[in-house]
Amino acid sequence: MTRVLLTGASGFVGTNALDLLLDRGHEVHAVARTAGAERPGVVWHECDLLAAGAPEGLARAAQAEKLLHLAWYATPGRFWTAPENERWIDATLRLLRAFGEGGGGRAVLAGTCAEYAWGEDLLSEDLTPLAPATLYGACKHATHVAAAALAEQVRVSLAWGRIFFLYGPREDPSRLVASVARGLLSGQDVATTDGSQRRDFMHVRDVARAFVALLDSDVEGAVNIASGHAPPVRDIATLIAREAGAPEHLLLGALPQRPGEPPVIAADVRRLGGEVGFHPSIALGRGIAETVGWWRSELAGAGAGAAEPDGRST
Amino acid sequence: MTRVLLTGASGFVGTNALDLLLDRGHEVHAVARTAGAERPGVVWHECDLLAAGAPEGLARAAQAEKLLHLAWYATPGRFWTAPENERWIDATLRLLRAFGEGGGGRAVLAGTCAEYAWGEDLLSEDLTPLAPATLYGACKHATHVAAAALAEQVRVSLAWGRIFFLYGPREDPSRLVASVARGLLSGQDVATTDGSQRRDFMHVRDVARAFVALLDSDVEGAVNIASGHAPPVRDIATLIAREAGAPEHLLLGALPQRPGEPPVIAADVRRLGGEVGFHPSIALGRGIAETVGWWRSELAGAGAGAAEPDGRST
Repeated sequence: MTRVLLTGASGFVGTNALDLLLDRGHEVHAVARTAGAERPGVVWHECDLLAAGAPEGLARAAQAEKLLHLAWYATPGRFWTAPENERWIDATLRLLRAFGEGGGGRAVLAGTCAEYAWGEDLLSEDLTPLAPATLYGACKHATHVAAAALAEQVRVSLAWGRIFFLYGPREDPSRLVASVARGLLSGQDVATTDGSQRRDFMHVRDVARAFVALLDSDVEGAVNIASGHAPPVRDIATLIAREAGAPEHLLLGALPQRPGEPPVIAADVRRLGGEVGFHPSIALGRGIAETVGWWRSELAGAGAGAAEPDGRST
Repeated sequence: MTRVLLTGASGFVGTNALDLLLDRGHEVHAVARTAGAERPGVVWHECDLLAAGAPEGLARAAQAEKLLHLAWYATPGRFWTAPENERWIDATLRLLRAFGEGGGGRAVLAGTCAEYAWGEDLLSEDLTPLAPATLYGACKHATHVAAAALAEQVRVSLAWGRIFFLYGPREDPSRLVASVARGLLSGQDVATTDGSQRRDFMHVRDVARAFVALLDSDVEGAVNIASGHAPPVRDIATLIAREAGAPEHLLLGALPQRPGEPPVIAADVRRLGGEVGFHPSIALGRGIAETVGWWRSELAGAGAGAAEPDGRST
């Protein structure tokens, strides 16, 4: 049994990662601002990692062998530019040092495809220039640069998983797949761009599985966490509309493309497949069907007064 | 008259930069852990920038239009690996944000040649890969990555001056030029490597002048702060020995090269010369003569009990 310190444990990826880590028989020290449900094998730590002394106190309390650090500022719409991005650099480095100095040996931290210079056809860990265009991408990349040197010094084996696009049940309702699904299921017209932009979308359970596989491997450095397929977004919207039974309400092309929107954000997944040995198991059609089904139940429940205002059921 | 916030004002480069800023007629808000001498045009702020709230308080107190941020952890021998490097990322980003949000418009921060992947013949801002091999270089580079995105957001025009090697009066006695000069002037044998490694050494007053020129320009991004000449280190040692009148005490080749020591660390200075319009004015021969002369007086003074234990006169 390995003791794993998991941050962001109540987040979109983190809730799924927690399940998977328990399935693998790990003891999980789960970190969130508000503790989740009590379960065997989980020790919750209620903690704001941006508070003074919090990362060090947490590492001391957990005494973990492995660290899966998913926590970061993630409020949709605001995270690209929020000053909290700068604070998370420091919190992450403090946590990594305290973890390493406390005897931890293996860490996986969450990065992002926004670290790359977008515009290349395939974003590749070793070949694509790192030229983030946003504060979020820049602060993630800065964290990796410093963390890589720090990990070497405190003798922690470090991998950095760059997340691309994701979807699945319990996603924040303002994100793409969730908002299209909710709109169509509610009988509304949903206006989108022509959806010609291609994006690598991976089901959140596969994203979580990839992180856990990476954590239990000895692969070091940056690894893209993505499916390797980047269909036009209109294909995804069309799948959602079909599952929702409302193709006539999907108004593709009713909105203009945002200026500067890159035509392709696609991942080279050779490291994830070849070195980590991970391959996603949820095809897009099945994943979208499951997600639309989840939103259907959720909205039915909401109609009956059972859902919370933020769309997450308890 | 422009109000400039200068950090590291009592450091090796900072003391020289302070003089130059005053010569240019700027009002200088000078930051150091211990205030320097009172002079017209200088407002001292005694401040440990790593203390909680310090960067924000400093920016508020100074209300400066320009920021020249030279402060960082710099203890010789320890700075390559010290955990303080991680703290300076955060302090620098906090200072830059508070400066920008308080109305500051132009900032120059100090980077390092240790951000580059050494081993290239000429280290160039736009062409050489950034692959720092040390915690110091990594934390500096991480700071630049995040600061560039942050500056755009708070509308600060930002340049990042990458310092190479430097020398001059008042250098820490454990650094290369100072230690060779002091040893030879004291009549000791000084053992060195064969000195075949080539390094770009610039006189500290030229380094300070380059920073001030960069601050008063509108050039943005990374700029190498270097002379453009990288002689073998043995040439520099030989110049020192000649000036010290003790060539027979310089034992070139008595020490082995350190493993992994890069044969060349040379700067592409086209940006500094062509865009900033700065050219160094102190040739190596003259600079070394001045520096050896300064150490000669210093050591004579020390013999008479007038110097402080750390070799800096008051």
